[in-house]
Amino acid sequence: MFENIRIVLVNTSHPGNIGGAARAIKNMGLSRLYLVSPKEYPADRAVWRAANALDVLDNAVVVETLDEAIGGCALVVGTSARDRRIPWPLLNPRECGERVWQESASHDVAIIFGREDRGLTNDELHKCTYHVHIPSNPEYSSLNLAAAVQVLCYEVRMASLVDAEGLIPALTEWDVPPARAEDLEMYFQHLEQALVDIGFHDRDNPRQTMARLRRLYSRIRLDEMELSILRGVLTAIQNFAFKMKKLTGSSENK
Amino acid sequence: MFENIRIVLVNTSHPGNIGGAARAIKNMGLSRLYLVSPKEYPADRAVWRAANALDVLDNAVVVETLDEAIGGCALVVGTSARDRRIPWPLLNPRECGERVWQESASHDVAIIFGREDRGLTNDELHKCTYHVHIPSNPEYSSLNLAAAVQVLCYEVRMASLVDAEGLIPALTEWDVPPARAEDLEMYFQHLEQALVDIGFHDRDNPRQTMARLRRLYSRIRLDEMELSILRGVLTAIQNFAFKMKKLTGSSENK
Repeated sequence: MFENIRIVLVNTSHPGNIGGAARAIKNMGLSRLYLVSPKEYPADRAVWRAANALDVLDNAVVVETLDEAIGGCALVVGTSARDRRIPWPLLNPRECGERVWQESASHDVAIIFGREDRGLTNDELHKCTYHVHIPSNPEYSSLNLAAAVQVLCYEVRMASLVDAEGLIPALTEWDVPPARAEDLEMYFQHLEQALVDIGFHDRDNPRQTMARLRRLYSRIRLDEMELSILRGVLTAIQNFAFKMKKLTGSSENK
Repeated sequence: MFENIRIVLVNTSHPGNIGGAARAIKNMGLSRLYLVSPKEYPADRAVWRAANALDVLDNAVVVETLDEAIGGCALVVGTSARDRRIPWPLLNPRECGERVWQESASHDVAIIFGREDRGLTNDELHKCTYHVHIPSNPEYSSLNLAAAVQVLCYEVRMASLVDAEGLIPALTEWDVPPARAEDLEMYFQHLEQALVDIGFHDRDNPRQTMARLRRLYSRIRLDEMELSILRGVLTAIQNFAFKMKKLTGSSENK
């Protein structure tokens, strides 16, 4: 099950933190590290801090975009230090460990960590099923990146140990597999376009429409069949808008 | 209550780890750092890794011996990576966080961390009320020192948050305060001498006698009055041995 868990570091500045994260990952029995556009990598400092976890570094997958890193995952948890304008379903680290461990039995999951100085962007956080917040001193809350990886991987390991004692209930049985991150992302693109087409949404004045819709659909944990139905609905809406435009000679959208 | 909790690093080799530990301590809302004979300190690398937790470094107490660092503490928890020949009462990190948090309401407590390469010595571990083990990958179990500090401080903070919800039961009421580390240590010295005096214990062939006795008395959580009684007993034993020696002209001990 540990093999289905990806630790994703986004846009890391200091290679030492990549090494420290690799070590924490291996210490806790995990192995899969994804690096999204690291600023400086490969680097000697990463190797130095990784100590005997060089295999984790060697097998790390370096990608350009977050979407590539979470492709295939049906659960994506994003670390968040701040209160967001739009609150997202939030886990504490213990709940995160339990959920990640549970779901890793049936599909790939990812925990994503942001930049040392600014964390994850709102766009990145809106790709997540859940957010997780490590409780910290309100007056000094900026955990070192490798330390944050350590805490969340530790909670996954603790969950696995508690699970071995039969204390974590199994996930509810479900007839259809959960939708994967890339399919959800395509759906959100499709949804936004459809909303533009019908004049509901203005990309030049987006307000929080898409963020709220992303949160809503992320919370449902759509399965593949449901997603396919929703996309069918969008296509139907777009066909309707297209015919309207042809009939009236203009879109309702200014 | 956080103010009653000491994080003690014994004989640290790399000053970067001291800085990383300081940062983890402050992130989790703790503040008191004790350094027992650090190899290289003060040091620029400690400052660099501490980031904005310089106040923790500035207020760190540097001492020569572990006894000084745990002086005044009535609960001492030692981190241990290995199975010991003599098993000690063992906590997992979650239990450690809960116990440290509970007891910090009434007295000083210490969590002690050993050397990067060899951890704590058996002598140091035998000064502890409990040992704590961070569960890790059996094939790669050597956590970075700052990462270990992070995990245990995190669990103290989690315990404080759970406690705020009223989920941790209060400690049983007790009429006399628990004995402090230095008084226990004096007792163990006294005990060993008394056992030598009566010919029960041979310092040149100690086997595990003292370790087993330390474990036994640590487990009881002696209070001040009980300790005073036990010391009275030792003194009586010694007086007896002294009189015997005077009468027979020799000690029973070869």
